[in-house]
Amino acid sequence: MAKPFVAILMGSDSDFPKVEAALNVLEKFDIPVEVRVHSAHRTPDATHHYVKDADQRGCAVFIACAGMAAHLAGVVASLTIKPVIGVPIDAGPLDGMDALLSTSQMPGGIPVATVAIGKAGAKNAGYLALQIIALQYAELQKALLEDRKNNAAEVLEKNQALQEKLQAR
Amino acid sequence: MAKPFVAILMGSDSDFPKVEAALNVLEKFDIPVEVRVHSAHRTPDATHHYVKDADQRGCAVFIACAGMAAHLAGVVASLTIKPVIGVPIDAGPLDGMDALLSTSQMPGGIPVATVAIGKAGAKNAGYLALQIIALQYAELQKALLEDRKNNAAEVLEKNQALQEKLQAR
Amino acid sequence: MAKPFVAILMGSDSDFPKVEAALNVLEKFDIPVEVRVHSAHRTPDATHHYVKDADQRGCAVFIACAGMAAHLAGVVASLTIKPVIGVPIDAGPLDGMDALLSTSQMPGGIPVATVAIGKAGAKNAGYLALQIIALQYAELQKALLEDRKNNAAEVLEKNQALQEKLQAR
Amino acid sequence: MAKPFVAILMGSDSDFPKVEAALNVLEKFDIPVEVRVHSAHRTPDATHHYVKDADQRGCAVFIACAGMAAHLAGVVASLTIKPVIGVPIDAGPLDGMDALLSTSQMPGGIPVATVAIGKAGAKNAGYLALQIIALQYAELQKALLEDRKNNAAEVLEKNQALQEKLQAR
Amino acid sequence: MAKPFVAILMGSDSDFPKVEAALNVLEKFDIPVEVRVHSAHRTPDATHHYVKDADQRGCAVFIACAGMAAHLAGVVASLTIKPVIGVPIDAGPLDGMDALLSTSQMPGGIPVATVAIGKAGAKNAGYLALQIIALQYAELQKALLEDRKNNAAEVLEKNQALQEKLQAR
Amino acid sequence: MAKPFVAILMGSDSDFPKVEAALNVLEKFDIPVEVRVHSAHRTPDATHHYVKDADQRGCAVFIACAGMAAHLAGVVASLTIKPVIGVPIDAGPLDGMDALLSTSQMPGGIPVATVAIGKAGAKNAGYLALQIIALQYAELQKALLEDRKNNAAEVLEKNQALQEKLQAR
Amino acid sequence: MAKPFVAILMGSDSDFPKVEAALNVLEKFDIPVEVRVHSAHRTPDATHHYVKDADQRGCAVFIACAGMAAHLAGVVASLTIKPVIGVPIDAGPLDGMDALLSTSQMPGGIPVATVAIGKAGAKNAGYLALQIIALQYAELQKALLEDRKNNAAEVLEKNQALQEKLQAR
Amino acid sequence: MAKPFVAILMGSDSDFPKVEAALNVLEKFDIPVEVRVHSAHRTPDATHHYVKDADQRGCAVFIACAGMAAHLAGVVASLTIKPVIGVPIDAGPLDGMDALLSTSQMPGGIPVATVAIGKAGAKNAGYLALQIIALQYAELQKALLEDRKNNAAEVLEKNQALQEKLQAR
Repeated sequence: MAKPFVAILMGSDSDFPKVEAALNVLEKFDIPVEVRVHSAHRTPDATHHYVKDADQRGCAVFIACAGMAAHLAGVVASLTIKPVIGVPIDAGPLDGMDALLSTSQMPGGIPVATVAIGKAGAKNAGYLALQIIALQYAELQKALLEDRKNNAAEVLEKNQALQEKLQAR
Repeated sequence: MAKPFVAILMGSDSDFPKVEAALNVLEKFDIPVEVRVHSAHRTPDATHHYVKDADQRGCAVFIACAGMAAHLAGVVASLTIKPVIGVPIDAGPLDGMDALLSTSQMPGGIPVATVAIGKAGAKNAGYLALQIIALQYAELQKALLEDRKNNAAEVLEKNQALQEKLQAR
Repeated sequence: MAKPFVAILMGSDSDFPKVEAALNVLEKFDIPVEVRVHSAHRTPDATHHYVKDADQRGCAVFIACAGMAAHLAGVVASLTIKPVIGVPIDAGPLDGMDALLSTSQMPGGIPVATVAIGKAGAKNAGYLALQIIALQYAELQKALLEDRKNNAAEVLEKNQALQEKLQAR
Repeated sequence: MAKPFVAILMGSDSDFPKVEAALNVLEKFDIPVEVRVHSAHRTPDATHHYVKDADQRGCAVFIACAGMAAHLAGVVASLTIKPVIGVPIDAGPLDGMDALLSTSQMPGGIPVATVAIGKAGAKNAGYLALQIIALQYAELQKALLEDRKNNAAEVLEKNQALQEKLQAR
Repeated sequence: MAKPFVAILMGSDSDFPKVEAALNVLEKFDIPVEVRVHSAHRTPDATHHYVKDADQRGCAVFIACAGMAAHLAGVVASLTIKPVIGVPIDAGPLDGMDALLSTSQMPGGIPVATVAIGKAGAKNAGYLALQIIALQYAELQKALLEDRKNNAAEVLEKNQALQEKLQAR
Repeated sequence: MAKPFVAILMGSDSDFPKVEAALNVLEKFDIPVEVRVHSAHRTPDATHHYVKDADQRGCAVFIACAGMAAHLAGVVASLTIKPVIGVPIDAGPLDGMDALLSTSQMPGGIPVATVAIGKAGAKNAGYLALQIIALQYAELQKALLEDRKNNAAEVLEKNQALQEKLQAR
Repeated sequence: MAKPFVAILMGSDSDFPKVEAALNVLEKFDIPVEVRVHSAHRTPDATHHYVKDADQRGCAVFIACAGMAAHLAGVVASLTIKPVIGVPIDAGPLDGMDALLSTSQMPGGIPVATVAIGKAGAKNAGYLALQIIALQYAELQKALLEDRKNNAAEVLEKNQALQEKLQAR
Repeated sequence: MAKPFVAILMGSDSDFPKVEAALNVLEKFDIPVEVRVHSAHRTPDATHHYVKDADQRGCAVFIACAGMAAHLAGVVASLTIKPVIGVPIDAGPLDGMDALLSTSQMPGGIPVATVAIGKAGAKNAGYLALQIIALQYAELQKALLEDRKNNAAEVLEKNQALQEKLQAR
């Protein structure tokens, strides 16, 4: 059986600086990742082919990132029964509100797991993919619990730093 | 060469009562029409096949009607270089605002001609298709001009009826 | 090891008629489900206790359904590293736009997999949970593929029925 | 018979940097274009006169670009039965949401083919006009198909470039 | 010189039940009123002619009521330098938000005095027209002051009635 | 009788760079203007006193400019039966959408003539005040007609300039 | 010193069915309440007088309920330094979004404690007033803690009832 | 009995530059303040512990500041019956509209006193906390009245400065 990996698709390479947050999270936990620029509208056939192929090669989770009338996640979701995470990108004058609605308001039967708009959403797409994969890997679950503790500790450190800053003023 | 016709696609048959307004307009002007229920998400292959086939059989204009994360028009537009008209349907709790943004905010290179949300939009999709086809048929142009005069006359009659109603009160 | 099950939480029992769509999908595929009324705000301790307990008893996926300032999914997500699906419920005057933003716009590190507002979203939450669990069960993957084919066939049947209806008029 | 051309109207010359995207697309395909600054509100008579005149001189498609309470496309559409494309411009504090609604929500009988807000929309207005005109010119259809292939190839090249960039890091 | 009157225009006779609130206010104060159904889009010439004619016959204030992409007030304002009041009508799925933006967001130089959406707005359009005309008629100013006192008294009576209702429970 | 003048109130002196557009228009037509910084919330008594006093001294039209929960125009309107124009200012993170709704959605009986958000709205507030005052001054009507012609000419000149620019490229 | 009481003001008696939820909560805890219909716009002087008077007679908290351009809470807040709670009422076509922004987006220095739109908000206004007053009354704090436990118990009972309902199907 | 103090919580230390406005107001009136970085999602246990502890140590009012899916105020409110003020922070692409709805639309029984988005809201959170505490401290009431007079005087001074500036131009 093929090894599970995560496929990250983005509609435009100009989205990469935001999308990269998903990649960073997955790499931190040593999850194999494929990153592709594939447009639902400009390269429908290549998108179709890639999704079908990645699906068969053992892709466990798809992450699709797109702005404006963000159809990419929906198109991917129509081609696979693997979990598809949609990241609405804040591109264009409406700041991602269009992408949020285009990604989340999917009709019954074809779900897209939508996360927040932009960079924070991309980061969470990475974490959500990890959580999904971790259901099969006790080790990864441990790593996620550890990571969350570290994140909590980081917040508490920032809290401590603020206390000192406030004392000093 | 194939005779020009209009293809109306809708994402769900429950949209038909609104979509019918487009059909009525086209039939009034004796334009051949094909009406299909094809979902961008639930029947992506059938949609793909139908669009490619209709395109080759001489379809001049596509009208795609869908609600919520309305990707249907965008999917059709990605498969043809014929004009594609998108009708955002007011289905679901957001009353079509989601469908309006999902239909209109297309990325550069793949246009969708978006009309108003719901029934008024479906009617206008019919008229827009007629206007596009009429560029090749002087006779149809005449009929459209006549129709517009009639519509104007109807408004003026309603104005007259209101005058009488106001006199009478 | 505990058998995987899905926990559906809702903020108010008045949401059940919409939430039920998730339950129906999961039951159709014989996935064990627990359904609970637990409010993030009115029963924070019971929610906390239930999530921690369900997590340890082998809950694979949490589905949290809430309206207005819908914090339930976020609270659940803060207590577990299992995937958490959030269903924004259209309760109150803003028709679920408030719940959509409260559910989807999570900060980096604590993802919530947000689906559509209301009943369509609840149905998709069921499907998304199935897709996640199916990564470990080839049989369930087959069942999902079969189900999707059936859904596609149903759309095509509706298309056929529409053709007949149109012929007849 | 007059040769078909496209008329681009804009409400203010300050919109030109965005509107130019439509002009560029049309020029690339050697379609004759007239560009005019005509305000629905400040020069209603000149607008009226120009539209009527252009219509008679063989204008095939009108493209009307305006921001805020964007009435220009609607005014043009009320004066002709040629297809009218509306480009909502993101001018003013509401970032084009006002213009999108003012352009798309036309009443039944007077359609406006609305495209995306701003520069992406202007580009698509150019493409949509080309698609409409191409119905009469097999050669233009070929050119559009070729162009779309080139655009797809460009996406795939960007994908390739990203792969190399990712390898290198 | 012609006697001042108010012209009420509405885009569709179906708007009359809401528009009537303006008429009622003006009639209560014995201001001559003309009511017309004239569509900016369907009867542009009749609208143009009526506005120019009413203007010359002594129309002091125009009230234009329209829903969706509500251009009527803007069109009227482009044809006269008399004050134009715009009433956004809540017609269609967006409940008048489209009409509010289409009416209020006018470009510099062509003002429209926008009031609230729907019936409350129509009533206020009547009052605003009265206030404008009253600048020339001390008697009307007195009547408006009297009317406002009466309205205040009515609120206080309702307050009194509520006190009694609360005592009784 | 007191000479008519226009009173411009703004909620904060930081709004002046936008509000100034109203002042400039009125000064251009030699209309006497008073400009005041008066906050509905921070100086309710001073606002109350000023409005009552200005009203008696012959103020013909009030222009009230405020951002966020913009109550200033409503407060002024509750204190006078003179026409009150409200300018929603784009201050704060919501870019004036809050101010637009706070200004326009007045209850029946207390109208506020709302114009566009920000600088364009301020300019139009000036023009609207002129149009209202001009009902009593034939000379001012002539000046407004002349001004509008000049504005139209300016648009046509810009059109001409664009033609030359396009020729040259 | 005067005994603390809560003053509930509403802009229109038609709001009472929603506002009543605040009254019910306060009466349940034996807090003296005054309920008044006072409009910020239609009875500014009576509102002014009542607020100043209630303030001096020992009013501890004001609750102001209003819809549309909801200025009532802001007007009350400008007249007192007692805590003012604003309840945005869902009246009119915008379903309370206008009232929410008009109530919450107050400028610095004059706070309004805004709660949810409509009935849920009115109920919470009652609770918030109780929480504020309870700071001085240990007994009331106990009663609030008891009430919250009861509310939690009620949720758990509903949960139990749902379990039985699910078993039975 | 413990001395009353105000606890300010923020979801992220990056919010401090906006949150600081609350701290400044409280310090100006010599109210003891604790400032903490505690995330509803990243440090749920620490938040829970802090709120319970602060509550027992005599915290009179909690101020919770968070952006995006801003759950912090709701979480705090679920853990205490002390008044909780929520400040929606404008972080992320939606400029705080998400945080406003996530903070204000609380379900019945668990109120959050929501103030404006961002810095103005933080300042008002400080003032609202002062008003609540002042109910027990006549001296603080006096100070608040004095402060409000000073703020009014400041507005009038700015008005005066504007008069001079206008004279000079």
